[in-house]
Amino acid sequence: MDELKNRALILNSRPNGYPDDSNFKLIEIDIPDINPGEFIVKVLWLSVDPYMRGRMSDKKSYAPSVEIGDIMVGGAVGKIISSRNSEFEVGDLVEGRFGWQEYAISNGSNARKLTIQEADISKALGVLGMPGLTAYFGLFSLGKPIPNDTVVISAASGAVGAVVGQLAKLAGCKVVGIVGSDTKASYIKDELNFDHAINYKKEDVCNRLLDLCPYGIDIYFDNVGGEILEAVLENLAFRARIVVCGQIAQYNLANDEVAYGITNFRNILTNQATVEGFIVSRFAPDFPQALSYLESLFIEGKLKTKEDITYKLENTPEALLRVLTGKNFGKQIVKIA
Amino acid sequence: MDELKNRALILNSRPNGYPDDSNFKLIEIDIPDINPGEFIVKVLWLSVDPYMRGRMSDKKSYAPSVEIGDIMVGGAVGKIISSRNSEFEVGDLVEGRFGWQEYAISNGSNARKLTIQEADISKALGVLGMPGLTAYFGLFSLGKPIPNDTVVISAASGAVGAVVGQLAKLAGCKVVGIVGSDTKASYIKDELNFDHAINYKKEDVCNRLLDLCPYGIDIYFDNVGGEILEAVLENLAFRARIVVCGQIAQYNLANDEVAYGITNFRNILTNQATVEGFIVSRFAPDFPQALSYLESLFIEGKLKTKEDITYKLENTPEALLRVLTGKNFGKQIVKIA
Repeated sequence: MDELKNRALILNSRPNGYPDDSNFKLIEIDIPDINPGEFIVKVLWLSVDPYMRGRMSDKKSYAPSVEIGDIMVGGAVGKIISSRNSEFEVGDLVEGRFGWQEYAISNGSNARKLTIQEADISKALGVLGMPGLTAYFGLFSLGKPIPNDTVVISAASGAVGAVVGQLAKLAGCKVVGIVGSDTKASYIKDELNFDHAINYKKEDVCNRLLDLCPYGIDIYFDNVGGEILEAVLENLAFRARIVVCGQIAQYNLANDEVAYGITNFRNILTNQATVEGFIVSRFAPDFPQALSYLESLFIEGKLKTKEDITYKLENTPEALLRVLTGKNFGKQIVKIA
Repeated sequence: MDELKNRALILNSRPNGYPDDSNFKLIEIDIPDINPGEFIVKVLWLSVDPYMRGRMSDKKSYAPSVEIGDIMVGGAVGKIISSRNSEFEVGDLVEGRFGWQEYAISNGSNARKLTIQEADISKALGVLGMPGLTAYFGLFSLGKPIPNDTVVISAASGAVGAVVGQLAKLAGCKVVGIVGSDTKASYIKDELNFDHAINYKKEDVCNRLLDLCPYGIDIYFDNVGGEILEAVLENLAFRARIVVCGQIAQYNLANDEVAYGITNFRNILTNQATVEGFIVSRFAPDFPQALSYLESLFIEGKLKTKEDITYKLENTPEALLRVLTGKNFGKQIVKIA
């Protein structure tokens, strides 16, 4: 592969607060010869997700940090251009944790072959990938919706939230989404068929929830934490379930900043509510079954999705910042090739 | 019953912060003739419990408030002195929600006959009553202990905490209790066989938990909330269970005080922990089975209990204040007759 050079983004320094370009460095490296069992993927699309901020920090978390000098982690889809693995052929479309680079070498353990058509492969990073699975297992395994439940979702137009809301509607629930702009509010109501939308930047979330959820909130799918979580805790139904999927409001604290303090934890007691944090990998054995359900909904047009596309590897840090500041509108991806 | 007068404590005003004597009023009333199906109980012991502070407030909670002018609610044990109910005879010992008064009229719906011997009937307000049941169901149904789990309990020498710890030891767990004095610390270690005790008034709870629970906390039985909850959240094990039984640190806020803010809610996500609030009445159908287990342990000497006794009805408000300020040592009861 002498003619090919790989370009990759490595972690250059740990951010204090929001990350910026200086935390990353673009490097150019040779692509080595591959060993038996390995294959080379030409990366077509990168996924950009809030959890990546956690990997840039050296705080203890559920997954190891990226070390300084290592290629940034993340999901991607691509096409195999060279293979010494009998299960993966040249031309196969694959999704895997290939990281922020233009070419990746894999032995297949971190990759899955895609069955969807090539025009839709970026969906394997969103609605038909990790975010879709996160929505599916968070809602069904933890939230346990029953028809007529009132479901509230924060970051509701995001990659996970948008799927949660559509699945909850299909399950017969009343769905209220919390978003950060009027455009996003219109999108989840008009395109995704949510019952109500709250723009937290303009409206008093606590009072609006009181109006919109007169019987209380049965399920809260929490992507953000902080003040919005506190507002939801004021409006719980008896035996409410709070699915803690993300706490994005707390991810970009500077070293000397303290996270928002939740003062109404007591409502968990008085409403006999359940709160559960989860990481989707817990459900890995059931991924194939869930993906097949999501794919069938997608093909039937019952599961809509919106992508927010940034172009070129070198703009991936900017794409991450868009996600962390809520500027993205739909699933944030980067077109690499 | 002309010769008998009943004396009762009614709610006189709602407290702002800690309650005091002015919030109650002692009244003397006639005991009316009873109707068919009713009986009269001479109250022997009153139970004093933290939840009573909640009933004095008009904030929405899981149970209705006591109205101004109403007799204060609470559990009690007594002996039947007159009966027109064929299932309850004169001389029977009963436990029920008889309130803060010397005589109570009941139709039996809020009473249970006691089988334990008369010398032990006050235990029906503690280890063999609501606090014991709260410990049992909170630990087993929500905490789901398995041998070698590390269990941390706040208010660990209290009526509920002391039972939780002993049951967890019997289930093969390692048990750490958090208490507010060295005397209580010695008690739970030396008398109740807890593995470790932390005196939160003298020690740094977070650091001590880190030392004592090197593999993290599997179960936290939370009776207090606030800063101690925050310290526990810093030391969770993977898939920890937090049983929210009480939030006593937050019960006596003055009207203008804000509860302690929990800033590390994110640890619930990263540890994939479960938090659940519960009120023991949820498990009412299973009370007989649980009581029979607790009674057998008690009779075998495997379940120890300590009572903190105040004398006379008129001192019940003072007994409540003892509980709310952690001055009680053991299950707080009041000897009425």
